[in-house]
Amino acid sequence: MSSPDIESRILEMGARARAATRRLVQLDSEQKNVILRAMAAEVRARRSEILAANESDLQQQQNRGLSSAMTDRLRLGPERLEAIATAIEDVAALPDPVGEVIAEWTRPNGLHMRKVRVPIGVIGMIYESRPNVTSDAAALCFKTGNATILRGGSEALASNTAIAAALQQGGEPAGLPPDSIQLVPFTDREGIDHLARMDQYLDLIIPRGGKALIERVVAAARMPVLKHYQGVCHVYVHEDADFDMAARILIDGKCRKPGVCNAVETLLVDSAIATAFYQEMAGLLEPHRVEVRGDETVREHWPGAVAATEEDWATEYLDLILSVKTVAGPDAAIAHINGYGSHHTDTVVTGSKEVADAFFHEVDSAVVLWNASTRFNDGGEFGFGAEIGISTDKLHARGPMGLAELCSYKYLVTGEGQVKA
Amino acid sequence: MSSPDIESRILEMGARARAATRRLVQLDSEQKNVILRAMAAEVRARRSEILAANESDLQQQQNRGLSSAMTDRLRLGPERLEAIATAIEDVAALPDPVGEVIAEWTRPNGLHMRKVRVPIGVIGMIYESRPNVTSDAAALCFKTGNATILRGGSEALASNTAIAAALQQGGEPAGLPPDSIQLVPFTDREGIDHLARMDQYLDLIIPRGGKALIERVVAAARMPVLKHYQGVCHVYVHEDADFDMAARILIDGKCRKPGVCNAVETLLVDSAIATAFYQEMAGLLEPHRVEVRGDETVREHWPGAVAATEEDWATEYLDLILSVKTVAGPDAAIAHINGYGSHHTDTVVTGSKEVADAFFHEVDSAVVLWNASTRFNDGGEFGFGAEIGISTDKLHARGPMGLAELCSYKYLVTGEGQVKA
Repeated sequence: MSSPDIESRILEMGARARAATRRLVQLDSEQKNVILRAMAAEVRARRSEILAANESDLQQQQNRGLSSAMTDRLRLGPERLEAIATAIEDVAALPDPVGEVIAEWTRPNGLHMRKVRVPIGVIGMIYESRPNVTSDAAALCFKTGNATILRGGSEALASNTAIAAALQQGGEPAGLPPDSIQLVPFTDREGIDHLARMDQYLDLIIPRGGKALIERVVAAARMPVLKHYQGVCHVYVHEDADFDMAARILIDGKCRKPGVCNAVETLLVDSAIATAFYQEMAGLLEPHRVEVRGDETVREHWPGAVAATEEDWATEYLDLILSVKTVAGPDAAIAHINGYGSHHTDTVVTGSKEVADAFFHEVDSAVVLWNASTRFNDGGEFGFGAEIGISTDKLHARGPMGLAELCSYKYLVTGEGQVKA
Repeated sequence: MSSPDIESRILEMGARARAATRRLVQLDSEQKNVILRAMAAEVRARRSEILAANESDLQQQQNRGLSSAMTDRLRLGPERLEAIATAIEDVAALPDPVGEVIAEWTRPNGLHMRKVRVPIGVIGMIYESRPNVTSDAAALCFKTGNATILRGGSEALASNTAIAAALQQGGEPAGLPPDSIQLVPFTDREGIDHLARMDQYLDLIIPRGGKALIERVVAAARMPVLKHYQGVCHVYVHEDADFDMAARILIDGKCRKPGVCNAVETLLVDSAIATAFYQEMAGLLEPHRVEVRGDETVREHWPGAVAATEEDWATEYLDLILSVKTVAGPDAAIAHINGYGSHHTDTVVTGSKEVADAFFHEVDSAVVLWNASTRFNDGGEFGFGAEIGISTDKLHARGPMGLAELCSYKYLVTGEGQVKA
């Protein structure tokens, strides 16, 4: 598509989304839930259509030689399609944060103040691979009264188009305002730049993906960005740790699902216990076929370990690879985590409350844990009911983002004619 | 200064600020308050030095023919200098939001979750004119454990340099970590671009000023921006309004201090009462010498009113000028405010709760008022104790920003060895 065409089509989508916000704000919670359930029903009704679209995406990617991990992310199938419909119904069942009074007080001059949750407005969502993000993001943004412009990856275009059509055409007869949910129908990269520059229409942009995507959005964006970026997550085993607990937490974080952002990438171990712990862990990790990259102490006591480079300490492997470093104690561990980590999720295993408190206080990460797996950094595990992702930013939303984080607020002030002067 | 020099000096300031954050997080509330009081004492001790620096700024600007309003903003004098010192002591007296537990709960699996306020990290503050912003911003950011890089306007460079030196050299003997408060010692515009691109060191940038400044920061910024931008604020007089109350609110908002962002720029009046209201207001506003720009109905009934152009409806005059429009009723008023306003502060004057509720619900502004002056959009009036400004953004902080809004949060999770799988 030509460059002016891309720009004008993106701008048109923006103007339509902005216009839809005025109608979205009129819907009450029950109306929104009826619409969400109609969307879920339509996804089920169009099962064969959506699966056929997904099959054509898969076919194209197999011709291009996509990796099996990528193919797995892209593939739907009847079970995952049913999970998509159920997830929309789950969002309908959640409490509506819009209109919630967050704070309320009266000033000495009699002014009554309320701080109330409201929709953000128009949200742009830029993502890769998994087609379920289309429906998850659309449902969560709609539940919070936001209009959404979705821009998925080229590899999933047919699947995303089929899902978005089901949401729109299922929702509209039930009262979904037209243009509340729009999918960018082309995947030219330039479209991302135009979306990111369109601050007259977009209130927020959420990029969820790899370094190149995030960089592109951050460089172009004129509106707030909430990045869902990488997790270089640590387990720090303090000398007072219970070895079995530490091993359990490490295996859970590294081996069960290595391809997710809250998986463990680096293990830090106090030098006082390093030898014993490495020997025990080497045996326990053996069946999981994890490649270990470590410092000299690690290589001496962990059979098969290779040398870690400086780069390893800052790398999100998303794979069965673990970097391991021997540290002098809590201060060194904290300095390593704040220096090389990605401020995502970090855990300390220790019997010492004092060490845990220092770790809590000084580790500058979204979620800091004591004696628990990094895998608990997740909206569902936090009890948020659903999440749009895990923010790696520090402003507005940090860590798991649920419905409340998809809202802004405003102040409503009631007076009886008060003036300032 | 040469372009590479500007960039390298800004980068060096960023690296130093980042390093300071680690020491800032170690200070407890009492230590911070001691340091703040030492800063205030040093501002008082250097009174003649700071006033002399201010005098040299004023002299330079008078040679350049600065407007009298600008000169007034720039001028300090003994009273304003004392107010600067007192404001720092007021910040010391406020409760410390850092460490506050915002939420706390236990999950069914026994994990105990705490959501705790923490510093944001490094904050860049870009502002114009008033030298008191240097000390206000530095004190508020320091109280919340943030390192600050201040970049004031060229017209106030000598004043800002003298104030920043008092804060640094007064604070450091009392325990202020070096590089916690830095002032950019040159005012080349390019410095703004380098600050805004430096996302490896800056967590947030707050521009406070006019359109050109805001545009420059938004275009360059790679980190979150909280804009303190213009207020095109409205008073809407509904047909059920008490005329005396409406007049009082209008005069308070338009005439007392027209140069501030929460002053009124546009009056909207229901057509059913327009004739009578305009005739009454014309008499009441006469002694205030306000220029009125209105539609045809206005010009018929308001002696001296001139024609308003389309541009008037979106203009922040910051002056004794008022645009006036006759509307059919609440829907038209709300559509006008959402369409032409700046989502800052808007008030409805009415005896009808139903109309006020619709106005509250549908006007998309940071602060929406019923029967009260727009001038109440102010951190002090909200009871926040102090404010760094009024955010015109919708993410993170909207409306008056106090100490809590200068914080991020993190989640602290305590377990007993829980794993997910």
